[in-house]
Amino acid sequence: MERHFDVSLRELKEQLVAMAGLVERAIDDATQALQKRDLTKIAHVHEMEKKVNLAHKAVDNSCLKLLALQQPLAADLRLIVAIIKINTDLERMGDQAENIAYNSDRYLRGLPLKPLIDLPVMAEEVRVMVRAAIDSFVKTDEGLAREVLSRDDKVDALKNKIFRDVLEHLKDQPEMIEQGLTLILIARNLERLGDHATNIAEDVVFAITGEDIRHSGSMQTIKKALESK
Amino acid sequence: MERHFDVSLRELKEQLVAMAGLVERAIDDATQALQKRDLTKIAHVHEMEKKVNLAHKAVDNSCLKLLALQQPLAADLRLIVAIIKINTDLERMGDQAENIAYNSDRYLRGLPLKPLIDLPVMAEEVRVMVRAAIDSFVKTDEGLAREVLSRDDKVDALKNKIFRDVLEHLKDQPEMIEQGLTLILIARNLERLGDHATNIAEDVVFAITGEDIRHSGSMQTIKKALESK
Repeated sequence: MERHFDVSLRELKEQLVAMAGLVERAIDDATQALQKRDLTKIAHVHEMEKKVNLAHKAVDNSCLKLLALQQPLAADLRLIVAIIKINTDLERMGDQAENIAYNSDRYLRGLPLKPLIDLPVMAEEVRVMVRAAIDSFVKTDEGLAREVLSRDDKVDALKNKIFRDVLEHLKDQPEMIEQGLTLILIARNLERLGDHATNIAEDVVFAITGEDIRHSGSMQTIKKALESK
Repeated sequence: MERHFDVSLRELKEQLVAMAGLVERAIDDATQALQKRDLTKIAHVHEMEKKVNLAHKAVDNSCLKLLALQQPLAADLRLIVAIIKINTDLERMGDQAENIAYNSDRYLRGLPLKPLIDLPVMAEEVRVMVRAAIDSFVKTDEGLAREVLSRDDKVDALKNKIFRDVLEHLKDQPEMIEQGLTLILIARNLERLGDHATNIAEDVVFAITGEDIRHSGSMQTIKKALESK
């Protein structure tokens, strides 16, 4: 028989995974809106984001209750602290999906710059990264979590390429500057989704192993060097 | 005599406040680098950011120890959970200071667009907001925390104005597009600092009152509507 605590912890995990599902749908709808020039999807994103916000508060509330009533230790405590952090990241991912939706809405009301440069490629990379981060949590899979971390450089490189490509196009078409800027902002939104996926993966590694791998190693240094470009 | 737990909690708060001091210095140096065209300040930001990262891990570690060893309840538990979240925000504020430093570095190596538009005004608004958020934590001051929340709209409005002004200038000087984009990115970095200050203020209100005021009210709606612009 499961301990009462195990039941509560399982329910908490399910709550978080359901929230993650909403976030993934919001991201998909936001990026699809842009790629398929489908404004109806933008309304979905806003609905989803509202649900994510409710889930955000509910998950925090459950964590606090579990900490207060069960006073968990060791791996259980690490898991709950990780969930508190992952919850924060998921909520901000919902915000980023909404930002993509707003920016896409604005972009789609103007003339297209050119067939979206590498944004669809970047969106797909980010989608895979987010999926893997959530999966690593669901499956308690340290290897998968570490794989997420290795993907972040590729996303950052794509963002830099999109920046350069947009600037290149604008040299010939300076009247398209607002549209170009909007694409650059969407690339930033996607990059931030990748950052949040990285945070989640780091929290999953911590929950499983107790090892705090944040701010470590050369990947971080490379990332920092690239991220402001 | 203080309980052992109270001593630990006081030390944890001091640890967080010291970290916040580093973050504030990093923000000041980054924004001063841009305004005073002083590249030497940029190196300081990088040093500070490394220290912030170390503090980030140390604070989390202290929180986890306190939760495990003292199993706090009610207000104490809320405070520690709030500190876990504030710690995350402070670390990301360090990242944003670094982004501002990188972007300023790039900007200062090119020709100036024009006397920095409203960026110094926005930087000052954000500085005050960050200061008040940290102060509200130090002084356990709910009123001050709520004041922070009311400032966020002004920061967002300044960002929107900077976006528009830059675009306006670029219509006459399309060859300055990279410089204009960099200023827009710095405005975004500043805006995100304001968002983190808001998060901290919300966590302070929660720690003090137990009330979760996130995602509530019309301010949030207005904020959302503006933030992607």
